[in-house]
Amino acid sequence: MQPDHELILTRVIDAPVSAVWRCWAEPELKKQWFCPRPWTTPVIEEDFRTGGESFILMQGPEGEEFPNHGVFLEVLPQKRIVITDAFVTAWVPSKKPFMTAVTTFEEEDGKTRYTARALHWTAEDRKTHEEMGFHEGWGMAASQMEDVAKSL
Amino acid sequence: MQPDHELILTRVIDAPVSAVWRCWAEPELKKQWFCPRPWTTPVIEEDFRTGGESFILMQGPEGEEFPNHGVFLEVLPQKRIVITDAFVTAWVPSKKPFMTAVTTFEEEDGKTRYTARALHWTAEDRKTHEEMGFHEGWGMAASQMEDVAKSL
Repeated sequence: MQPDHELILTRVIDAPVSAVWRCWAEPELKKQWFCPRPWTTPVIEEDFRTGGESFILMQGPEGEEFPNHGVFLEVLPQKRIVITDAFVTAWVPSKKPFMTAVTTFEEEDGKTRYTARALHWTAEDRKTHEEMGFHEGWGMAASQMEDVAKSL
Repeated sequence: MQPDHELILTRVIDAPVSAVWRCWAEPELKKQWFCPRPWTTPVIEEDFRTGGESFILMQGPEGEEFPNHGVFLEVLPQKRIVITDAFVTAWVPSKKPFMTAVTTFEEEDGKTRYTARALHWTAEDRKTHEEMGFHEGWGMAASQMEDVAKSL
């Protein structure tokens, strides 16, 4: 992987892998943390399996709506989730392949080493994503996820 | 799927699905038909499973070499194979996502309805692929594949 195509967030989440995994696997939990507040995700419809489709509607505080379609390239229980926006359903190409997100879950002293990597097709897209606030946004979402995982 | 993003080859192959499937699943068989002659495929290295990697070296009569990297998005035995060049390995983005090929195998009176669809991210790429000789090339390869399948 060329480093100029990749963005990474990694941290230890103070909850067991099983709980962190549930935050991804269960839409009702995922809705609670996936977007940094005050943004919300009122609709999450996912066929959570390799080859399954994902639809996430992000909503802003002014009512702005951003629909996100993607396909899971890999769902390896309690280990790894790979999703891409290069397809809107399996296997219809999207208008603009922007990124593939690889998220891994590893046990670390009863907690979870949580790593989310965003892989882009171009260095330019990586830069755009960083300027859109990747680190702040994904970081805030991870903190929100930790709160949900700890409550389980 | 927008029709201007897609190219399709479909025909009935005079061999059972199990034989046609083997032409895809076994590199030593695949080498015999995958490129329209006089082109050849001296190297085919594939991890033939969903998420597995594919490397195919195409060689022209003058010694020209075209290396092709891809990833299988779906390998559903005797039913469907999906491969894309959007990744060089799982899940490293390629320089240029050009197409995803969806190939299906259906039993039809003891023969095989064989359908190969090439899905492109842009209408321009579809056009380029057509002008590169999609119909002739994939058609010749299918005929070569039929010869191999009938010999099994």
